[in-house]
Amino acid sequence: MQVYLDNSATTAVAPEALAAMLPYFTEEIGNAQSVHAFGQRARTAVEEARRQVALLIGATPGEIVFVSGGTEADNLAIRGIAEAQQANGRHLITTKIEHPAALATCEALAAQRYRVTYLPVNRSGVIDLAELQKAISDDTILISVMHANNETGTIQPLEEISAIIRARREQGQKHLYLHSDAVQSVGKIPVDVKQLGVDLLSLSGHKLHAPKGVGALFLKKGTRLTKLFYGGHHERDRRAGTENVPGIVGLGKACELARLNLDERMARVRNLRDLLEQRIISEIPGVTVNGDREWRVPNIANLSFAGLDGESLLIALDLRGIAVSTGSACSSGSLEPSHVLTALGLSRQEVRGSLRFSLSAYTTGEEIDFAVEALKEITSRLREMLPADEL
Amino acid sequence: MQVYLDNSATTAVAPEALAAMLPYFTEEIGNAQSVHAFGQRARTAVEEARRQVALLIGATPGEIVFVSGGTEADNLAIRGIAEAQQANGRHLITTKIEHPAALATCEALAAQRYRVTYLPVNRSGVIDLAELQKAISDDTILISVMHANNETGTIQPLEEISAIIRARREQGQKHLYLHSDAVQSVGKIPVDVKQLGVDLLSLSGHKLHAPKGVGALFLKKGTRLTKLFYGGHHERDRRAGTENVPGIVGLGKACELARLNLDERMARVRNLRDLLEQRIISEIPGVTVNGDREWRVPNIANLSFAGLDGESLLIALDLRGIAVSTGSACSSGSLEPSHVLTALGLSRQEVRGSLRFSLSAYTTGEEIDFAVEALKEITSRLREMLPADEL
Repeated sequence: MQVYLDNSATTAVAPEALAAMLPYFTEEIGNAQSVHAFGQRARTAVEEARRQVALLIGATPGEIVFVSGGTEADNLAIRGIAEAQQANGRHLITTKIEHPAALATCEALAAQRYRVTYLPVNRSGVIDLAELQKAISDDTILISVMHANNETGTIQPLEEISAIIRARREQGQKHLYLHSDAVQSVGKIPVDVKQLGVDLLSLSGHKLHAPKGVGALFLKKGTRLTKLFYGGHHERDRRAGTENVPGIVGLGKACELARLNLDERMARVRNLRDLLEQRIISEIPGVTVNGDREWRVPNIANLSFAGLDGESLLIALDLRGIAVSTGSACSSGSLEPSHVLTALGLSRQEVRGSLRFSLSAYTTGEEIDFAVEALKEITSRLREMLPADEL
Repeated sequence: MQVYLDNSATTAVAPEALAAMLPYFTEEIGNAQSVHAFGQRARTAVEEARRQVALLIGATPGEIVFVSGGTEADNLAIRGIAEAQQANGRHLITTKIEHPAALATCEALAAQRYRVTYLPVNRSGVIDLAELQKAISDDTILISVMHANNETGTIQPLEEISAIIRARREQGQKHLYLHSDAVQSVGKIPVDVKQLGVDLLSLSGHKLHAPKGVGALFLKKGTRLTKLFYGGHHERDRRAGTENVPGIVGLGKACELARLNLDERMARVRNLRDLLEQRIISEIPGVTVNGDREWRVPNIANLSFAGLDGESLLIALDLRGIAVSTGSACSSGSLEPSHVLTALGLSRQEVRGSLRFSLSAYTTGEEIDFAVEALKEITSRLREMLPADEL
């Protein structure tokens, strides 16, 4: 049995999304910029997908910019605002628990005479709104706070953050923008850009059952951005490069599926996640939940196993066909302990003993049972091997 | 009948490439960064594709960086060298006939205190090597010259260009690099990075029967580059972002097909292109060939129809199911006459009357006949409608 519980790293493409994409590889092959009928049919498909993506997040189609994925969306948003608004200020605010795509972009800007404040988080992984208030200065141009964290699933209070920004704008600080990396929340929980009050929002196809290699940036109408790619006037002159027609069609279809099935998916996935978590906690000693148990996306459980090593658990589970992770796939291979769990204030031992289980709409109860049984055996066997004083 | 003769805009995905990709959408879904078996199988597939791409162009696998397409490759190459080498100089040399991805990147750099020289071309569309020699100064860091032009197919003398650069390097100008946009030549003619002597070379999947949304940059071992995307340490820290596993697998397979069948494809496509061109020239009055008839890729014919309007021909052909183009798809919608044909010294009328036919490995003799017959009728009808003095 193969059990894939690493859906925060990447997901399977929905069969409906793949079916929608297939004609665009070998038959409807036009370049969406071409004048002829092949081109026009490709253009129609791209614009239909743009409408589907917009609908899922409460945007208008003109506010959707197709890109190659979440990393490009974050880079385009953060660097794009920083460069476009540099005359109004060079201060950015973000958090200590952002995805590497946002953190590394901020670090690169910090090396180019921008100033960056990294907000801490509490034990639940949530920022302190009073700290945010204090951090905003007259030269702050961008606040970038992820929606749901990729390791713990914890959800940030974006509505409250945007209310703070709105108040600053009303006091005259017109050029203050809010970006959110919503790669882990779109398709998992309701995401409405108007309700959240964001000006920019990143999403990634392969995290929501669309293919790898495609994503989108929501860019609120009227928001100016410098470019990452120069070239043709694609995407209303916001992102050069031939449109990835099949990928975009797949993203549109996956967004439609997510929109039509969101409530049912959320309930199903949450039930299975809670079942997984409760069984592990009650059947395996010394397990704690990392992040906020209430304010989190329904598909992630991040657990620490006292005295054990997450990497060893991962490998033992992998040998039984069960895929989980010790944190972000983008940081794997790195020997550094998780920057997210460290920011939550976990001890080095708790961080070392952590494991992320991430479910999807395709996860079954049978898979959960299989994983729990395997984990029980593995933890018990590993603990037998430990010297008594390490437990 | 549907006849697609716009393969310089984009190509159909090879059935073999699509077949290779398919498992990676719904079954082999791993993130190539993940430690578990799903991730390792994805990693293996990516590395096999890297080897296939490298083999086609005479590179080593470690010199291949996967990106989202030709535009990203050009931006990464040109901006990446410009920024990495700025301490050694701020002068770039390119040509007047580059793709918009290269030209617009150079223009953006010119707005950031870089100096750019745009070399002219002769009537064949080829740069003058003596002019290049003269243009190089002590602060020149990058020469970016496309391999085959996307509108005319004309091939630039890259070997001679790299010999000039080698001579400058031997005279002590160590930090002078050669980049070539080879988007229109890879898979069409032999491309060997060592023989050409390039340090960087861009290629695009969807121009060679791989899918849209994937491409590669050849980066000669030891060449330093700043990044376009910050984030995870993917692609040996040269390009952040989850690897587009299916797209990369498709690119690898398409490169393998191109490598194994290159001679046969070239001969077949050249025969059909020459047949198309010769029949049009001999059966339709007032047709001239744009670009160099010898030094061009075998799949492109760029023709001017005296007294006629390329856009009207395109639309009339489209109504009969035949897809051609008046120039770059990336510039379509623009009312500006082709910057390439203008640089060749064509009159405004010749530019206006131009049409690009671009074939692929899948073009058939029947399609060529169908297109020629349609074109004969269309040109003859359109010319009957013209006042006599315009002919």
